[in-house]
Order: sequence, then structure tokens, then C-alpha cells
Amino acid sequence: MIHFDTDYMEGAHPQVMEQLMKTNLVQTPGYGCDEYSKRAKELLIARCGLDNKAKVFFLVGGTQTNATVIDGLLSHHEGVLAATTAHINVHESGAIEASGHKVLTLPSHHGKVKTEEVEEYISSFYADETYEHMVVPGMLYISQPTEYGTLYSKEEMTELHRICKKANIPLYMDGARLAYALGSPENEVSLEEIAHLCDVFYVGGTKCGLLFGEAVVVPQGETTLPHFFPLVKQHGALLAKGRLQGVQFETLFRNQLYEEIGVHAVRLALKLKEAFVNRGYQLHIDSFTNQQFVVLPNEIMDRLGEEASFEIWGARGVKETIVRFVTSWATKEEDVDRLIELLPTR
Amino acid sequence: MIHFDTDYMEGAHPQVMEQLMKTNLVQTPGYGCDEYSKRAKELLIARCGLDNKAKVFFLVGGTQTNATVIDGLLSHHEGVLAATTAHINVHESGAIEASGHKVLTLPSHHGKVKTEEVEEYISSFYADETYEHMVVPGMLYISQPTEYGTLYSKEEMTELHRICKKANIPLYMDGARLAYALGSPENEVSLEEIAHLCDVFYVGGTKCGLLFGEAVVVPQGETTLPHFFPLVKQHGALLAKGRLQGVQFETLFRNQLYEEIGVHAVRLALKLKEAFVNRGYQLHIDSFTNQQFVVLPNEIMDRLGEEASFEIWGARGVKETIVRFVTSWATKEEDVDRLIELLPTR
Amino acid sequence: MIHFDTDYMEGAHPQVMEQLMKTNLVQTPGYGCDEYSKRAKELLIARCGLDNKAKVFFLVGGTQTNATVIDGLLSHHEGVLAATTAHINVHESGAIEASGHKVLTLPSHHGKVKTEEVEEYISSFYADETYEHMVVPGMLYISQPTEYGTLYSKEEMTELHRICKKANIPLYMDGARLAYALGSPENEVSLEEIAHLCDVFYVGGTKCGLLFGEAVVVPQGETTLPHFFPLVKQHGALLAKGRLQGVQFETLFRNQLYEEIGVHAVRLALKLKEAFVNRGYQLHIDSFTNQQFVVLPNEIMDRLGEEASFEIWGARGVKETIVRFVTSWATKEEDVDRLIELLPTR
Amino acid sequence: MIHFDTDYMEGAHPQVMEQLMKTNLVQTPGYGCDEYSKRAKELLIARCGLDNKAKVFFLVGGTQTNATVIDGLLSHHEGVLAATTAHINVHESGAIEASGHKVLTLPSHHGKVKTEEVEEYISSFYADETYEHMVVPGMLYISQPTEYGTLYSKEEMTELHRICKKANIPLYMDGARLAYALGSPENEVSLEEIAHLCDVFYVGGTKCGLLFGEAVVVPQGETTLPHFFPLVKQHGALLAKGRLQGVQFETLFRNQLYEEIGVHAVRLALKLKEAFVNRGYQLHIDSFTNQQFVVLPNEIMDRLGEEASFEIWGARGVKETIVRFVTSWATKEEDVDRLIELLPTR
Repeated sequence: MIHFDTDYMEGAHPQVMEQLMKTNLVQTPGYGCDEYSKRAKELLIARCGLDNKAKVFFLVGGTQTNATVIDGLLSHHEGVLAATTAHINVHESGAIEASGHKVLTLPSHHGKVKTEEVEEYISSFYADETYEHMVVPGMLYISQPTEYGTLYSKEEMTELHRICKKANIPLYMDGARLAYALGSPENEVSLEEIAHLCDVFYVGGTKCGLLFGEAVVVPQGETTLPHFFPLVKQHGALLAKGRLQGVQFETLFRNQLYEEIGVHAVRLALKLKEAFVNRGYQLHIDSFTNQQFVVLPNEIMDRLGEEASFEIWGARGVKETIVRFVTSWATKEEDVDRLIELLPTR
Repeated sequence: MIHFDTDYMEGAHPQVMEQLMKTNLVQTPGYGCDEYSKRAKELLIARCGLDNKAKVFFLVGGTQTNATVIDGLLSHHEGVLAATTAHINVHESGAIEASGHKVLTLPSHHGKVKTEEVEEYISSFYADETYEHMVVPGMLYISQPTEYGTLYSKEEMTELHRICKKANIPLYMDGARLAYALGSPENEVSLEEIAHLCDVFYVGGTKCGLLFGEAVVVPQGETTLPHFFPLVKQHGALLAKGRLQGVQFETLFRNQLYEEIGVHAVRLALKLKEAFVNRGYQLHIDSFTNQQFVVLPNEIMDRLGEEASFEIWGARGVKETIVRFVTSWATKEEDVDRLIELLPTR
Repeated sequence: MIHFDTDYMEGAHPQVMEQLMKTNLVQTPGYGCDEYSKRAKELLIARCGLDNKAKVFFLVGGTQTNATVIDGLLSHHEGVLAATTAHINVHESGAIEASGHKVLTLPSHHGKVKTEEVEEYISSFYADETYEHMVVPGMLYISQPTEYGTLYSKEEMTELHRICKKANIPLYMDGARLAYALGSPENEVSLEEIAHLCDVFYVGGTKCGLLFGEAVVVPQGETTLPHFFPLVKQHGALLAKGRLQGVQFETLFRNQLYEEIGVHAVRLALKLKEAFVNRGYQLHIDSFTNQQFVVLPNEIMDRLGEEASFEIWGARGVKETIVRFVTSWATKEEDVDRLIELLPTR
Repeated sequence: MIHFDTDYMEGAHPQVMEQLMKTNLVQTPGYGCDEYSKRAKELLIARCGLDNKAKVFFLVGGTQTNATVIDGLLSHHEGVLAATTAHINVHESGAIEASGHKVLTLPSHHGKVKTEEVEEYISSFYADETYEHMVVPGMLYISQPTEYGTLYSKEEMTELHRICKKANIPLYMDGARLAYALGSPENEVSLEEIAHLCDVFYVGGTKCGLLFGEAVVVPQGETTLPHFFPLVKQHGALLAKGRLQGVQFETLFRNQLYEEIGVHAVRLALKLKEAFVNRGYQLHIDSFTNQQFVVLPNEIMDRLGEEASFEIWGARGVKETIVRFVTSWATKEEDVDRLIELLPTR
């Protein structure tokens, strides 16, 4: 059986595990006040081209990170703008609302929000005479790559940045799979650029080589997110052994491991995509990152399912079904080749 | 100046005020443990054709009532299904989310949800392999009449009841303007029928003749909403002088006042609607209740606005604008006639 | 039967009712955007000696007001300091916590916090090495008079003001029964002084002559409580017919009605207290306002209970019980005299 | 420098790390649906002497676990009884309140609640005439060992169980350091007994040999905690790579590792305690587990601090200070011996 279900089917990248082993018995203070965390934060800030105003916080998982950051950015009367397909709107069991905030939805264009629609939402909002009875758009949430593997172009990112500045609301990027955006040949926005266009973003570790861990980067530090430490604790997102994220992120960013992980996974995903297209399958979405969404006739899907695992996207269709194939740092080229072999030409 | 902005521009119906005056110096215990409240609840339960299992709770306003009832009905992991245009989704400043619950939106058909779409949402939800990461549809919210003045037919109500029973979730009706549904010639669903089709609903007082006050009716009482009293208190919805709602609702339901209020307002609204149609205006929605939505050319709207007040629905358009005219128990026929007089034929 | 249970056993002061009747059919816009509300706010601001930076918000009830103000003043990681006996800590069904905030308790000295203990709490807090894992004291809640009828002296108020300024946290006063503090011969702190010592306070209407309604005064306006209007709506505390509080508060403050109400009730309460003392009863607390707390032998309590009603404070004791007697604007002197007559000398 | 600050200064027990390494590249489904998690749960259920009704959930950290379990157990109007010194009341940054629930405090007796005081609280609560305005005691939180290293006896546990059953509220035990209770020579309550006396408890991993991870055990499964999985997700406590806790807990419970860890740490802690006593120091608390609390003259504390690290408990005192020394699975006997050597006799 070969597996393409998700990008979190293994433990951590061997270099990361090695470093966890090596440092295992070193004694450090808890809650991220250790040297590993300090160095990892410095590395990340430097890689983002930021100065010492910037702050980095290590959290554990994605849903938790989104809920905590959004709770920190929003005032009581504000909500978060996001595409209807956004992870925070669909797959987080209501974590945002459980913290008291509404997700204000915009149409999803293959996972992306359209810049004009963001701008229009905000201006219509304030044009409505009853707006004081409505939830104020208090921030914008985007993901790069999106939940559908699509990417914001540099022009789009610059435009979203401008719109948010004009509306005086923060722009937040969910980077759960950021390595797989940065590793895409179609990617136009570098980590440095992200750090200058977003008010807050996170560099995802869980899906990009770590056991777990997400690094929240706040370029303007406490100006943007004051008193964030106690909020992290309150959200149950503060790891006692904070050094674990320190050690792991230091490994990712000391050399080019983070970049290599992205490039590897995307290359294999695009190889797979090419095979699907060549064999006559319809792509559900034209993704240039590590997630590929294909429409499979149910019969073929079932046969394939005997030798490979993957995720049904939504519910099984009557005749054909949307299926997701995911690669990661851990995907072996031979498994991709084997999957391609199994694919009948339509 | 004549006013058609809303149905809460005056104080209370004169009979209600008279009763408040008459009882003003009577001493009663607080928090609704008084004889007026007791009698008002009995009257309402009888009028609904319910037995002594039923409970009635008096709250103060609509947003508060929705937030408290929904908080009471939902478990932590559940959300409330509602039309995108539902009051709880648009005009309650995020009160539902502030209590920790997500509003799960369904397409709005002139304010109504479509029965098939409700059923489809629920079955798709459970067909999705990842549903345990998503907010469970834990109840259905509807309003009668809707925020757009439209009405659910008996068939639709029966169907919604069936779907909710099948899914084992409560059906909740927001009756902020219920008198104006019951008073409509197009209405098919009586108060008794509502009480047998809904798990919880409220009979709105604020917009139907009272100073304030909403009566939450729970046909199966504590089976449906256990420990609701402390929740009402927690939501800040428990009035110290609870007798005030008792006195007011007793007046509404002792005779036929509630019914008369509805009939009066709807008759005048339909008179106005007929005039709009006859003069060639486009209805935004074909409403049979006390709210009428018309598309007015901006020029005409502005001229009319010099002698009459009404509400712009959403934002002002470029050339024409959707405008809402509302009647109530207090609307005078002469004001309606004067408004009609002012309307140029197109 | 004569009643001393609470100060909310009747409707509203006759002058208030008269005004509600007189204005009943006047048409106004909703949600407090009416002329009555505007004038009432101006009157209150003038009476407090404040300038046009000040803002006044009308809410409906006390628990609601506390929950909304505290939610507005606190950031996510902060809690509210209060005496263990504070209304917000005991009798609000967890409304503060339901909004996500912890009540940080200080010892109660007959309902009051001790200035030194407030200061000590704050300095100990920041001296604790683990304070970033603890809830930050983000504001101070006091009530005047307290839930036990006691009063803060001018010196105490000045000191609390100084401590809060130093700690950079707002001082909030719950004035549910403020009229009965201002009307006490022992009171040292005028409404003007309160307005200059507190960051937010409310002038209670429900217990001081109105049907309902609490006026939140914010001397520094939006600097202290930005975006408070949508929060009021979100908490279900925005009355559709906001003019009702406008009309009522205008009546209270147009002349000296508010002052007269306080003086009347306190005079009768002190007459009652004197009788208790003269007849040999032990005061549970030496109150100079409209609530009197007396220790009654159960036998006497039960006998008294046949002709008069009052509230057991907490639970019935084995041999004797603490009992509360409350007067109000509506208390008749003859009822007080009758109660005194019924009291056996011990 | 030798370290006694906390029991989470290292990574994981070498056997745990070894197992994580060995399984690192095995591919598994996410979110705990893997074979390691399944086996670990079975082992734990068997060790607790429970049947297949029991459920185990793996979460990440202690604060998160408490917040999620308490949120799952309480209804909206209920609060959690706990000692004033309870972790949930002091050191969780308001996580319980952020989920909407009040902590109802009982006096702390060296970290423990007194059985009579629990019973008295509950009976007084319902004897109070105004109890419907107060937060209902909806569950009892205890910790074993407590935050002060003390232990509940078998008699006390049996009594707490009885009181909770009688009041029909669940008894929840925080077992963050449970191994160090079970490993104490003074311990009277076995894991099996805990599993039969508590409604929910957790077996802490973070402080007892794992990188992270807490195992929530629910003896009666869904009867006690229905729909807990989505709540775990909502609280951001669901790890994508759930297998990590599976692998770790399987290692702890496959053999006797969990027991050995406890015995080792407690033996060294008691050796240290004996030395303190023998040298004339005052114990702040007589603890029989891995945390020792001693009163040190500031001069001695400062000198000791040059060669050893430990935690100041609360704030530094004027002349002497309460200090905490903690041992763990990782503490070396030579470090304890060295610390003892450094201690001057008083």
C-alpha cells in the first residue's frame, strides 16, 4: 500500500529527529525560555529580513494557532474575513467561534479570496446604515498555499496588503503548508516579502518536516499583538517543554532544510499531476503545490484504492468523486512512480 | 413627516400602558415570580394548545432572546443552521458567536431556507469523511415572518419539522414579528400549529404592541431546555421587575389584542403594497406581512424622503435603492393614505 | 402583609410613569437615537460635572451592565478584581465568566475591598515569578453602596483612584443603588466626585425609581471604552425602544427626583435600624443606606414573617438567621412604623 | 549548575525517544486513528482495570487538558469546585473562564480540599434562597498529587466519590504528576482505584517521562463525556500526528516504565527532604512526592542559587522565602547528593 492521504503521515524529518535525540538530556527552563528557542527565533527573524522589533511565538498545531492569533488580533466586536473554504471556516470544529469571533465569509475562488471582493465587502459594510449592528470586519485571513493548493500572486498579495492598510485591519496568513508554496515553481512571493506584506503569519512545521510546531511571526511585535504570551497559555497552546519547538525550528532554518522539503514535495506532486493530465483525467483545481485534486470515476477510484490510499474530498459522488493526493518531505519517488503506473489512461 | 421606518417607533399599545399604570404600585416579588407573569404564561400556553409540560420564559429583546435560546439548545460542538440573511447571522453584532456558537449558513430564498437544502446540508455533512472536524448542525433557526416579510407555508413548516425530527435536532422559530404573520391573509400556520411543529419559538412583544418583552415558548419544557432560568440570568436577560412582561403579555393575550394588532398592521401594509404595484414600482420581494420592500429610483426616494421616513435596505444604490416600509399596531390609516398620495406613477 | 424584600417590588415612580404615558405615541427612531435619550444624557453629563468627551450608554439591567462594561474594559488575558461578596462574583450566574473573564477575589470587609489589600494584590502579583501564567488584574470593581449597604469614604475612594491610576487599570463602580448612597447622611462622595474618581460607573435606575434601565457613564468616553455600542448590542443589552430609558432618566434628572428618592428611602431605613438597635437586636452590618441586615432569632423571624416579608440572607441558621430589610422610593412610612410595632423587645 | 526547577527540564525518557526514532518513518493516518494510539489506549484501559465502555483521549498539555475536560463536563450554568490553590484557579491564565466557566473556590489545605467543606459548600448552596442566581457547583476538580505535593488518602478519595455521587456531579482528577503519587511510599490509592472513584482523570505524560502528552481516561466513556472528540479539536488540542502520543504512552505502559519513573523521582525527593529536615530547615509543607517545599533564609537561598537552580514559590520574602525543589525521572542521584552537600546546617 502506498499513501498519499496527507502530509502528516510520518514523524519528523530525520535531521530533526537526530537533533531531538542529541539534545534530549540537556536541561533547559520551560515554556520557551531556552537557548534553542531563542536561536530558532533569531534565525527565523533573520530569514524573514526583519529587525528586532519582530517577535516569534511557537505554538503546537494549526487550529490552535489560528484560534489564538485571531483571538489576539480581534476586539470583541470584530470578526475575521475569510474565504468560505478557509480552514478556519470549515475544519476547525468552530474554534474561532468558541473564542467568541465570527468568520465573515467571502466567495472562494479555488481557495482564494478575490482582492476586489475584499475591498467591496469592506466598503459595502460601512455604507450600510445599520452597520453598527453588524460584525465589523476586523482582519483578513488568507492561507498560502490555500486549502486547495492554489497560490496568491505577488500582485494579489500587494493588493491585499494595500486594502488592509487602507481599512486599518491586519492581514494574517496561515502558512500551515508554507514550505510547499515557497517550493513551487509558480510561487512569486518570497518569505521576506510575506514578512513585509503580512501583519502576522505562521510558518507551519507540522506538515513541513516537524513532529509538530507552528512559528507565529509578528513583524511589528507588540504593536500588533500585545500581551500575546498569556493568551497562548490561556489557549492551552504553551508547551511546557518549549525547547522542543526551538530544537526543531532551529534545524529547519539553520541550513536550507525548510526550502529543500518544499522543493522535493512539490516536484513529486507536479510529476503526479502531469501524469493525471496526460492520462486524460480532469483536475478539480489546477494546483502547483503539494496537494493535487483530481476528479476520478468511482470505478477507477475504487480500484486504485486497493493499492494506494488518498482522501475523498467532501463526499463520494454518484458517478465520480473528487480525490486529493498529497506529497510531503517524506514522499518517495518510487511511490509516485508506482501510483502513476497504476493509473489507467481514460 | 410621516414614519414607516420600523415597527418600534412608539411606546406600547394604549391598553398595555393602561394596565402598566393600573398595576404600578402593586408590590410583587421580582424575577418573574409574580401573579401577572404566572397568568400571562398560562394564557399563552392555553392559546398555544399546550399542556402543563410546556414552559414560558419572558426575556427583554430579540437579539438577547436568540442568543440565550441558541446557547441553551446547543452543545459546545454544535452550530445553528440559518439562512444567510437571518437576523442572527447579520444584525446581532455577533451575539451568537460571542456565546461560542457558529452560524452555519444556508442560501436565503427571500429570507427563507429551502427544505431540500436543509435536508441536503445535513446529509452531506455526515457523508463527509472529515465531519468530526466540522461544526455539527445542532439546530435549525427560522423566522416567521422572515426578515424579508415572507412566510413559511404549512407544508414547508411540516417538512422542516420532519427533517429536524429525523436529524434529531430542535427547530427554533424567531417570532419577533409573529403577530404580523398570524395577521396576514396568506398565513397558513396558526399559533397552535407552530407550537406543535417547533421545539422552541418566541412570541415577540417589542414589535407587536409592548414596550419590550419576548415570550419564549418551550412546548416540551425542561426536556428541551433544562436549566434555562440560570442561563437567562447569565445572559443578562432576566428583568428584576419581571412583572412588567407579565402585565404586558397578559394584556396581549387576555383578549384578542395580539391578533388585532397583526391584522391592522398587515392590512395597511398590503394597501401600501398595492399602491406601489399599481403605480408601477418593482417590489424587491413579494411580502404579505407588515414589511414591504420596494425598489425606488433614487430621485423619487429622495423626494419622498422629504415628507416620509423609511429605511434604506443595505446601501444606497447608484441609480435605484431598495427601501423598506414598515407598518405596526400604531400606524394610522391617514399616514398610509398620505404616503400613497405622495407616490408618483412611474 | 407589608413588604421589605427588595427595592424593586413596584413599577416606576409615578412621575416616571406619567412621562412614559405622555410620550407614548410620539414616534422616534430606535436604539437610543432619539431626543429623549439625547437630553437625558446631557442632563446626566452636566450633573456629573463632565464635559463633552464624556459618553453615556443606557442599558437595561444590572447583571447585563456589569457583564458588558467589564467585557469592554478587559483584554482577553485580564480579570477583574472584586470583593468575594461582589454581585459579579456571587449573584450573576457566572455572567462575567461566560464572557471569558475571571473574577479575581479580594477579602470582603462588609462588602468593601480594603485599599491596602488592593495595592498589595497588584504588587504581589507582579512580584511572582510565574505571573505570566496568571490572570492579570485588569480592572477594579467596586459597588457604592455595596451589596451590604456600606459606603466607601472619600479617602478610600481617592486612594482606590490613586492605586488604579498607578497600576494603569480602570476603576469601575457599580451604582445599582447609587441613589441610596447619595441620599445617606453618612455619604462623603458626591456624584461629581464619583465622576472624577472612576473611569466608568453606572447610575442605577431599576432599583431607584425606574421600570428598568441603567446609565453607564464614561467620563473619558471612547478613550476608555472604544466601540462600546456594538458590544452593548452583542450582549443583548440594546433596547429597540431606547427612548424608554431616555424618557425615564430625563425624568429622574430633570429636577431633583433622583436625590429625593435616595433621601426618602434611607431616612426610613435608618428609622428601622434605630428601632432594631433600640429593641436589642444585633445588626449583622452597620449600614447607613437602604438595606439593613439584622440577626433575628428564628422564632421571632418566623413570627414576623406572618405579617411582613423580607429576605433571608444566605441560608436559614440553626437558631438565628441573618435577614435583610430593604426600603425604596416606594416604601410608605406607615409600613415602617407597622414593622417596628411588630418587633418584640429582646 | 544542578537543576531542580521543574520536572520538565529534559526531553523524554530514553526508552520513549528510542521508540519515537524506531517508528519515525512508519506511515499512519492522523488524529489518533493509528495502531500505536489504539494499543496505548488498550494498555491503559487494562491497567486501570476498566472495560470496553471506557474511553481514552490523548491531548497535548495540562492546561489544555483541564480546559477541554472541564468544558466538556460542565453545562453553561455550572462551575467547577476546586481549591483556591488549584492549578486551574491560579496558573492557567484564565483558560477555564475563557471557556465560559467559573472556578468556585474552596479553602486549600496544603493543596487539598477538605471533604466536609466540599459537602458543606454544596448543601449551603442549595439552602440559599437565591441559588438560582448563582453558579451551580457542576463538578469537583482535584489533583493527585496536588500542586503542593500532597496526597489524598483512600478514605478521602472514597468520601469525595460519595459526595459527588450524592450531588450527582462528576469527580475529575488532574494527574499531571500522577506517577509521582503512585510512586510514593505514602500513597494509598492505586491507578485501578482512581479509575473506579473518578468520573474522569488524566494520566500526565509531560512531567512523567514524555516529550508531551496527557491521557484523559473516562471510565464510563460517552455516558460521561459525549461528543468529546470535536471538543478536543475545537480546543486546539488534537494533534495531527496523534501517533506521537500513541507511541509514547505505549512505551510508558507496555512494561513498568511509568511506575519506575515515579519510584525513582520520589525516592530522590524524599532523600532531599530528609536532608533538609536533618539540617534544621522548616518544611513549608510535608510532601511525600517529587516536589519539596522548604523555607530558606534568603542568605542561604542566594548562596545555594549560585550552584543550583530551583523555583521561588510565589514572591521573594523579606527575610526568608519559600522555595520548591523538584525531582523527576531524569534526576541524577549525584545531583541530589551534591545539593545536600551544599546545604549548611542551621
